[in-house]
Amino acid sequence: MVETTSILIKDTTLVSDSIQKTSILIQDNKIEEISNKLTDNDASKVINASDKLCMPGLINTHSHVAMTLLRGVGDDQELQTWLNEYIWPKEAKLNDELVYAGSLLAMAEMIKTGTTTFNDMYFFMEQTAKAAEESGMRAFLGYGMIDLFDDEKRKSELNECKKLIKNCHNTANNRIKVAVSPHAPYTCSEELLIESKQMARKNDLIYHIHVSETKTEVDDLKKQRNQTPFEYLNDIDVLDDKTIAAHGVWTTDDEMKILNQKGVSVSHNPSSNMKLASGIAPITKYLENDINVSLGTDGVSSNNNLDMFSEMKTMALLQKVNTLNPKVLKTKTTIDITTKNGAKALNIDAGEISVGKLADIILVDTKLPHMTPLRSPESNVVYSALGSDVNTVIIDGKIVMEDRKLTNLNEKEIIEDVSQLAKQL
Amino acid sequence: MVETTSILIKDTTLVSDSIQKTSILIQDNKIEEISNKLTDNDASKVINASDKLCMPGLINTHSHVAMTLLRGVGDDQELQTWLNEYIWPKEAKLNDELVYAGSLLAMAEMIKTGTTTFNDMYFFMEQTAKAAEESGMRAFLGYGMIDLFDDEKRKSELNECKKLIKNCHNTANNRIKVAVSPHAPYTCSEELLIESKQMARKNDLIYHIHVSETKTEVDDLKKQRNQTPFEYLNDIDVLDDKTIAAHGVWTTDDEMKILNQKGVSVSHNPSSNMKLASGIAPITKYLENDINVSLGTDGVSSNNNLDMFSEMKTMALLQKVNTLNPKVLKTKTTIDITTKNGAKALNIDAGEISVGKLADIILVDTKLPHMTPLRSPESNVVYSALGSDVNTVIIDGKIVMEDRKLTNLNEKEIIEDVSQLAKQL
Repeated sequence: MVETTSILIKDTTLVSDSIQKTSILIQDNKIEEISNKLTDNDASKVINASDKLCMPGLINTHSHVAMTLLRGVGDDQELQTWLNEYIWPKEAKLNDELVYAGSLLAMAEMIKTGTTTFNDMYFFMEQTAKAAEESGMRAFLGYGMIDLFDDEKRKSELNECKKLIKNCHNTANNRIKVAVSPHAPYTCSEELLIESKQMARKNDLIYHIHVSETKTEVDDLKKQRNQTPFEYLNDIDVLDDKTIAAHGVWTTDDEMKILNQKGVSVSHNPSSNMKLASGIAPITKYLENDINVSLGTDGVSSNNNLDMFSEMKTMALLQKVNTLNPKVLKTKTTIDITTKNGAKALNIDAGEISVGKLADIILVDTKLPHMTPLRSPESNVVYSALGSDVNTVIIDGKIVMEDRKLTNLNEKEIIEDVSQLAKQL
Repeated sequence: MVETTSILIKDTTLVSDSIQKTSILIQDNKIEEISNKLTDNDASKVINASDKLCMPGLINTHSHVAMTLLRGVGDDQELQTWLNEYIWPKEAKLNDELVYAGSLLAMAEMIKTGTTTFNDMYFFMEQTAKAAEESGMRAFLGYGMIDLFDDEKRKSELNECKKLIKNCHNTANNRIKVAVSPHAPYTCSEELLIESKQMARKNDLIYHIHVSETKTEVDDLKKQRNQTPFEYLNDIDVLDDKTIAAHGVWTTDDEMKILNQKGVSVSHNPSSNMKLASGIAPITKYLENDINVSLGTDGVSSNNNLDMFSEMKTMALLQKVNTLNPKVLKTKTTIDITTKNGAKALNIDAGEISVGKLADIILVDTKLPHMTPLRSPESNVVYSALGSDVNTVIIDGKIVMEDRKLTNLNEKEIIEDVSQLAKQL
């Protein structure tokens, strides 16, 4: 008996264990069976994947996706100049229409480079939710709260967050979830950090915050409070296993202990940290301290794309040279950070190709010069692949891209729209 | 009057100066005219490039292209383990057939990611020459001489080099040139370094050598000779403006002065240096010292691809984070290193889109999500583009790829061949 929502990925090679020629049956939004005995009769849709590698969709745990609108703005500047003179003046002009268009563009780009889930912090987030609903992506959406230590602003920011939870949380077959997202310790009052954490705990939501991105930020906090960022956040009790700290570049050994104890996840953003010259996050130390490290692209202005394949390679290479040890971040670890650990950070049952998991799956082409020979699928995926090698993307059991063609989005129209709209900025 | 060998690139956008909508006329192997008044009648072949960015082909100044055969071999290992246990035992099995197939595969990959010229050091180089002749690429080919301080071996290595010069130099309409390529100061005797330099000078050839790749190499030489690598090479008078030193990771301030005085070019290989944890080359210091820095991928086993777009971004980001200064390696400098400086290092009249230069040109697609919006062509090319965005490649006035289809090579067959042949290794 064939269900209309079932998909068979036939004769594929799993990157994780290099098992050649197995098939995957997807029923509704989950992986139902993995076996080489499955046949075309078992599903309503069959994808021949004999020339393709199969792996979990990549999970981007820190983004500001609508910043695609600002691609190419303010390159090669100091962080403060970049923010004050380039980014913030343009962000002040954002509106619903722009954020919707920018979000759609980002999702076209993310799907085309193999990302299935992203964790976003920005403004006009109901527009990003609308785009996620249409694109078919799995999304964690947070309104970026910034009160600049002002009482009135704090209240209105918390209200925005509350409204987003009410309107968007658990929508689109639960693909869309809201993450409570205070911007950072240096832009949010202690009260905002605490009250927003209470809101997150009450609704069982992810708490997403920038922490320890730059040395200046850490030095400033030390002067003000005689505490490092994670010491401070721990002191006000906002850290737990539903907390995702983006960046974590300047984390000390003492802070590592806190992160481990509280089960905090770190979202590492190597390209952004390199481009803005923020520093090199101590990823190998996080791993030694059993801290859950995941991967993110950050916004497009500090990257300048959303390609998680490139991010994955950059992360691995950067840690090797920074520790002068080529044996750190081996391919399996690198892939886990980009898939499994992201799922753990976001508390979703995805990030692995195994029975019962959410069917968030990508198929990667192998018949390409730079993917030849295919000695080790893991190695080729981490070190050789380009984001454009992704052939097919399935999210929540639905095909959102097949043979490089987006199913739910009109790529050409989206590109035209953003090309025009970006002129307003 | 229309010549059969003329090509018009119509209505394109030059990356270098963001001039919108100009056209380029190619006559034989050179750029004949750049003007917005050119019409379809001016050439026998017209390429509509109104949606494309036009830039010089990328120049890879340090490669071992047939190492595509070893893609995915020995990842994440210490350099000595990597060489002794993985690379060298497999390289011992190389032969004409393997190197030819591996070279063709590399050229398919290089063309598809926008490289038009490469400077290669390896073995069985007549096979790589054959592949370069067929693919249409511009190639500098060097037999990697290693005598391990043995007199007999030195003589036979020099003979190999002499034979290569005789058989391949200035072949294929001068697209193929031989570079005299002693492997490194730690694998070559002083006599070999000197005698091969004499051979290079006599024939007016590029001298291509690995220098100062690892700290161990530098420390060892200091113990043996009480000199740093470039001090030693200067002392034996092999440095000049026809010398390309690959890597140059551990170069000291004193050595910078030597390189500047002698006009030596450095080939920077960021991905390889990161993956093997060799260190971070002081690129910003080289530039401050007016030393010609160019870019290379190194071999595929330490990268693991030949994508110069990815290499370009990695280089820029790595220098920013390493100096903690986001203003270094701005987009123009980064592009120059990857094009113009490579041409200077190799002493060819290419690397720029201007009248009289060799017609080595690539067209890059812009109607892609990750290339939208197109505020700054330079920024999009350096930070956003993927190698797979290259649409059309012209080398020496001939189209070698059009709309992603290779003109001279059978991509599918090459992939099949290497997939099979690599099993021998």
